[in-house]
Amino acid sequence: MPSLPPGYSIRRTQPRDFENVVDTLRILTTVGDISREQFEDIVTYWNSTTINFHGKQIHAYHPRVILDGSGRVIATGTVFLERKIIHEGGLVGHVEDIAVAKDQQGKQLGLILIQHLTALAHEHGCYKVILDCDEKNVGFYEKCGYRRAGVEMDHRL
Amino acid sequence: MPSLPPGYSIRRTQPRDFENVVDTLRILTTVGDISREQFEDIVTYWNSTTINFHGKQIHAYHPRVILDGSGRVIATGTVFLERKIIHEGGLVGHVEDIAVAKDQQGKQLGLILIQHLTALAHEHGCYKVILDCDEKNVGFYEKCGYRRAGVEMDHRL
Repeated sequence: MPSLPPGYSIRRTQPRDFENVVDTLRILTTVGDISREQFEDIVTYWNSTTINFHGKQIHAYHPRVILDGSGRVIATGTVFLERKIIHEGGLVGHVEDIAVAKDQQGKQLGLILIQHLTALAHEHGCYKVILDCDEKNVGFYEKCGYRRAGVEMDHRL
Repeated sequence: MPSLPPGYSIRRTQPRDFENVVDTLRILTTVGDISREQFEDIVTYWNSTTINFHGKQIHAYHPRVILDGSGRVIATGTVFLERKIIHEGGLVGHVEDIAVAKDQQGKQLGLILIQHLTALAHEHGCYKVILDCDEKNVGFYEKCGYRRAGVEMDHRL
């Protein structure tokens, strides 16, 4: 399993990570206008929403950032846990919004982040972890230990 | 748009729906052993978890049942809302665990339920609603207004 470059670290996203997380996410998709206050509200929501699972209070959202040696956020991603009736009242992890800064490509940070989020979800009791991706990224996710499971469909107004 | 047969109705899933919901879900997938108490805990969690979105408290989970004229649950499904940073701090709806009782096939209940959950998600402000399905069900979801968006990948221990 690959490991982070020396000096790099990974931790839960905090409300103070506004600029770097938003800038990193712009690589991935449309972020649009989001204020510092909105960002702080969302991260505070993520960090305070819990699920009671087999008598333990666990976080529903597990947003993570990777920091370089200078403490700058250079990658971000989230896994959130869905509470189901099926599979004996099981949990499913949903990996979302993975982005790595352009100048940090080639260090396997995407792979490390996916493996970290996947392990987190399983440690919290998920019977499976899922994600949706473009056809062109299937090979990357197979390297992360995922396999093709179905078709993602969407509905937009 | 198709409508429910006379006497049928749709409402939020309640903790008292234990037997019928669990029996209906067994058509879909593995449910396993789940006690009445566990079921009640999960539905209570679904019905009490909220998101603050643009100053309004909204449910994160929207589980629904369809009842026939005698009040029996004959279909079930859920949409839950994920809070994101991207798309201006947007919401995405995830449609999950759609099941219709075997003796109720052919009444377009699946279609009605999907359209109901999709409309609910958009009314609550979701910029998109997604679901994962088998290749063989793509045509059905296209009839519901969905289009192919990507590949679902999964990771199981």
